[in-house]
Amino acid sequence: MSHKFNLPARYGTGEKSVWVEYIQLAAEYKPAVNLGQGFPDYHAPEHVTKALAEITTGENPLFNQYTRGFGHPRLVQNLAKLYSPLVGKEIDPNNEILVTSGAYEALFSTIMGHVDEGDEVIVIEPFFDCYEFMIKTAGGIPRCIALKPKATSGTMTSADWVLDEAELVSLFNSKTKMLILNTPHNPLGKVFTAQELETIGNLCKKYNVLCVSDEVYEWMVYAPNKHIRIASMPGMWERTITIGSAGKTFSVTGWKTGWAYGPANLMRNLQVVHQNCVYTCCTPIQEAVARSFEFELSRYNSPECYFFSLARELLSKRDYLVKVLRENGFNPTVPDGGYFIVADWTKLEKKIDLQSESDKYKDYRFTKKFAKEAGVLAIPPSAFYSEDHKHLGENFARFCFIKKDENLALAENLMKEWNAKKK
Amino acid sequence: MSHKFNLPARYGTGEKSVWVEYIQLAAEYKPAVNLGQGFPDYHAPEHVTKALAEITTGENPLFNQYTRGFGHPRLVQNLAKLYSPLVGKEIDPNNEILVTSGAYEALFSTIMGHVDEGDEVIVIEPFFDCYEFMIKTAGGIPRCIALKPKATSGTMTSADWVLDEAELVSLFNSKTKMLILNTPHNPLGKVFTAQELETIGNLCKKYNVLCVSDEVYEWMVYAPNKHIRIASMPGMWERTITIGSAGKTFSVTGWKTGWAYGPANLMRNLQVVHQNCVYTCCTPIQEAVARSFEFELSRYNSPECYFFSLARELLSKRDYLVKVLRENGFNPTVPDGGYFIVADWTKLEKKIDLQSESDKYKDYRFTKKFAKEAGVLAIPPSAFYSEDHKHLGENFARFCFIKKDENLALAENLMKEWNAKKK
Repeated sequence: MSHKFNLPARYGTGEKSVWVEYIQLAAEYKPAVNLGQGFPDYHAPEHVTKALAEITTGENPLFNQYTRGFGHPRLVQNLAKLYSPLVGKEIDPNNEILVTSGAYEALFSTIMGHVDEGDEVIVIEPFFDCYEFMIKTAGGIPRCIALKPKATSGTMTSADWVLDEAELVSLFNSKTKMLILNTPHNPLGKVFTAQELETIGNLCKKYNVLCVSDEVYEWMVYAPNKHIRIASMPGMWERTITIGSAGKTFSVTGWKTGWAYGPANLMRNLQVVHQNCVYTCCTPIQEAVARSFEFELSRYNSPECYFFSLARELLSKRDYLVKVLRENGFNPTVPDGGYFIVADWTKLEKKIDLQSESDKYKDYRFTKKFAKEAGVLAIPPSAFYSEDHKHLGENFARFCFIKKDENLALAENLMKEWNAKKK
Repeated sequence: MSHKFNLPARYGTGEKSVWVEYIQLAAEYKPAVNLGQGFPDYHAPEHVTKALAEITTGENPLFNQYTRGFGHPRLVQNLAKLYSPLVGKEIDPNNEILVTSGAYEALFSTIMGHVDEGDEVIVIEPFFDCYEFMIKTAGGIPRCIALKPKATSGTMTSADWVLDEAELVSLFNSKTKMLILNTPHNPLGKVFTAQELETIGNLCKKYNVLCVSDEVYEWMVYAPNKHIRIASMPGMWERTITIGSAGKTFSVTGWKTGWAYGPANLMRNLQVVHQNCVYTCCTPIQEAVARSFEFELSRYNSPECYFFSLARELLSKRDYLVKVLRENGFNPTVPDGGYFIVADWTKLEKKIDLQSESDKYKDYRFTKKFAKEAGVLAIPPSAFYSEDHKHLGENFARFCFIKKDENLALAENLMKEWNAKKK
């Protein structure tokens, strides 16, 4: 067939994603505990899965057929009901919300729908790796700025990872089209403060820049930290597209249902992209997510509401895994939100033969070797940095803690055993 | 916010799709019978929906979490098992199959993954409208050729709609990258014959062109016609990507699960696009589709197998709607496959005031006015032609017949009443 069928230039060399590689690794080496990919290994709330079962086998056959392309009516109505008070603005369910095949497709539709050839996009590192691929596919130029740890004498928390304001200001110019924010932040768990968001928002206003706020971990915030939606801040609604996820909200990442919301004029671009790539999303899943939101909204002020009970449940898992990591030679950053812990592994370097792995970056070598030797799989954070900044992630590994207590305990045992062997 | 946030040029003016417009129309005017969009208004097979219910509420919580990005293992294995004997080639489930968010995303990944700036793509008209949007978004140039009705004295069938071979040959040149075939054909119902496919295949081989074969209606073929997979013809596997749909196969269009299969070197391009836009598809739905295929494969040689029982069920619906249309002033083309009937409505033109509708094309005006007056909604086929050829679709309307018998009977009554009023 010849080189005639090479990949079009917009996809670069078709870089392999860290996910494809590490899922393959997990399938091959079968580590005893997989703390790599971010998904719970326990049951979703019963009312959520029961809703799907009832819908698909229920009396109305139309719940298994195509629904409205920009979002199933009952779902967009419930999203509007949920978010309107949270952003302080009556959201129009039909023109200001788009339901997508996961938050991933929401990011794709947002980036493809707004970034044109030569546009600059400011991205905060470390970042969810798809941002960079999508920006480049759209013809845009990522301008990256890293969160860097402040020197601290005590326990390092995600709040200690900060942006240098002068560096941030220097990235804005007349070509800047978009800034991508992620709060609570993956992988660091940083929950951006009102002051940090104000700095970012003011720059977006000054340079007429669109703010894309990836808030898929919006409900996983640990007291006393509070999640602030940048769209709710003065003058920001009209320049913000916010992204959310049913998979993260209801612990059903395999349901691949997400959404974007923002002002109709900015959302129109996303609709066009969505209409061109998937057109419409899964109907029974959307109906089930809609009913799940209705149920949670009806008990929003009770401690049982899953949005809040999940965060409480995760807090004890976080504290446990932080302790385990510390006791086993890692130096973890305590996250204020999300369900990942980034931990420095350099104190363990003398115990592990990194030469036997061939990867370019040390964190790839460490996580692979550690998975094979200790049976605990983590993700290398250099995957979340642009080429020039990958060294900033090399000393770390990302561990996911939305896992059964017994699996976290197993991770503890495996790490202890590994350390004992290495003495 | 200003024109800074206009749609990127690759999306043109963000044309509205006929689906968005006609779904809106249906919501507004509530026609008594909607024969517009192609989906069944009755129940899917019980084993299919029951499988989904059992999976989502079952013991394994991982069925609600992320699965392999290029396709859930059990699903790609069953697809390989189904298609290998049908194309006469052992298909590698991991490298030669990609599961997508509906056949729609399979088309998107195929077109975006192969069509580069300036490439020409041969498209047969009438076509599923998204082909054209996707080709243009990829920077390609659609080269359209219409199926045209042969003069016939008797009943017109979809086999009477043919390509002019000299015209087809004239479209091939050194810039031709791809040809998109659709068999059974939407909207005409044409089932391409071995001889027609050989002509197309030989041209693809001669000009080193990739053949994309959209076969989502593969099981809806009416005896004595037979569906032929062009990938099974000599020398074609290595230059063909074939597209299928669980929604069409199991009467669950709302499940939005499709796939593409073909040789690994061509599939690699699709993987890269897929990884960049949705990354992975819905897990419980994929597991349910996998189990449904297993069940049907276990009774493949029995008349109860849904692949064949559905076609028998549809045949009587087709014959009924053909009769109804004929008796009410339409001139339908009898389809050999698929679940649509294209019918010429020009004998009714004197009975209907098309001036009161403002659309540019007469078929839009007819279908809108007819929906409002008679309460029966159909789709205007000019939407399925390129700008220069839209007049070829103006005399027709597309009716879907995968509907409950009572709704087809209601359509008959409504058409009779409308005709009676107009006398």
